[in-house]
Amino acid sequence: MEIPVVRNVLEANDRMAARLRDEFKRCGVLTLNLISSPGSGKTSLLERTLRDLGTEFRMAVIEGDPQTDNDARRVAATGAVAVQINTDGGCHLDSNMILAALENLELEQLDILFIENVGNLVCPVEFDCGEDAKIALLSVTEGDDKPEKYPQLFRLAKALILNKTDLLPYVDFDVESAARGACTLNPDLAIFQISCRDGHGLENWYAWLREAVRLKKADA
Amino acid sequence: MEIPVVRNVLEANDRMAARLRDEFKRCGVLTLNLISSPGSGKTSLLERTLRDLGTEFRMAVIEGDPQTDNDARRVAATGAVAVQINTDGGCHLDSNMILAALENLELEQLDILFIENVGNLVCPVEFDCGEDAKIALLSVTEGDDKPEKYPQLFRLAKALILNKTDLLPYVDFDVESAARGACTLNPDLAIFQISCRDGHGLENWYAWLREAVRLKKADA
Repeated sequence: MEIPVVRNVLEANDRMAARLRDEFKRCGVLTLNLISSPGSGKTSLLERTLRDLGTEFRMAVIEGDPQTDNDARRVAATGAVAVQINTDGGCHLDSNMILAALENLELEQLDILFIENVGNLVCPVEFDCGEDAKIALLSVTEGDDKPEKYPQLFRLAKALILNKTDLLPYVDFDVESAARGACTLNPDLAIFQISCRDGHGLENWYAWLREAVRLKKADA
Repeated sequence: MEIPVVRNVLEANDRMAARLRDEFKRCGVLTLNLISSPGSGKTSLLERTLRDLGTEFRMAVIEGDPQTDNDARRVAATGAVAVQINTDGGCHLDSNMILAALENLELEQLDILFIENVGNLVCPVEFDCGEDAKIALLSVTEGDDKPEKYPQLFRLAKALILNKTDLLPYVDFDVESAARGACTLNPDLAIFQISCRDGHGLENWYAWLREAVRLKKADA
């Protein structure tokens, strides 16, 4: 007697992610999965981006947190559409959660869909959500050794945002060393040094976003 | 035909954790499981503690990281015994890993065993490692909303260390709000505001450690 067992949760997730990816492509919506430690500034980056590019692009955000709708409320305050997923203690978002969240969004009306994953440098990396790119964030207060210690995210991301550069004078963080660690894992990684507090470097990130949206529309 | 399946990884872990706890009790070694986001300062706290209390207590550290032995080398530089566990991408330590690490330690010769878990506010909380207490760390750069968003750690920890207080002038972090959020979840939580950089507040943490060691010895 053969017992059917779903042996691989990741395989099931990958199948659903492929369906989501097809749908994002059909609608021409650039989908970015933001991954970092808790408190690296994912929500702050979204608040700045949604405000600064709000007249240029139609954007929405899916927020993942173990508890609270704090982040969705912060994002909604910018005027953008925000959907909160509470994982109830879970450590990552997966494709099924994204599928459920999409019921509250009109993909055809969007240029960019941001997925703000649960704050966690490890688990979210394993679960494809159908995104075009994973975006890694690292705050300069976390230490320049993080790419080396948590390599998988930096290997798979298309862009790395080094956030909170305004704090560089007060911490021991060697930007060159962090960038070297990340580029050793991923030579094609785009790296942006920014401060969501004083706005430093955001224009480079916005230029990257514009080009990514253009390519997505061309591919739709 | 009945198919035996270990349905609950956590149950198996809990059984092993109970065995470890018995062994720690027999040896009278206080065991503390340090849990936080990546880069909150767990290793820095250990470096300070091992140096400042090195003549007072016999201490060892089990270091958990997805990759590298950076942290074990930092700890060993203080003169303490350090054992590195690489989880090879895994998001938490579990009791089996601790059991394996103990082969490199002489528990009878120790007063305190520190377990520095993988940097992750979510998954390590689920896996009992036989410790006497979970110690939560939160850096003031991570935001004062973290207890509310990631409640489980703050609910279960015996102490919360608010680290990097030297950066308070440069960030938006309301100490009262973070403490209130944590105490709402866990009214018995001991909270220490410290800076591993300038040494502020460490004496209060050391006093807590001394009392915990005393109680452990009395209970052995």
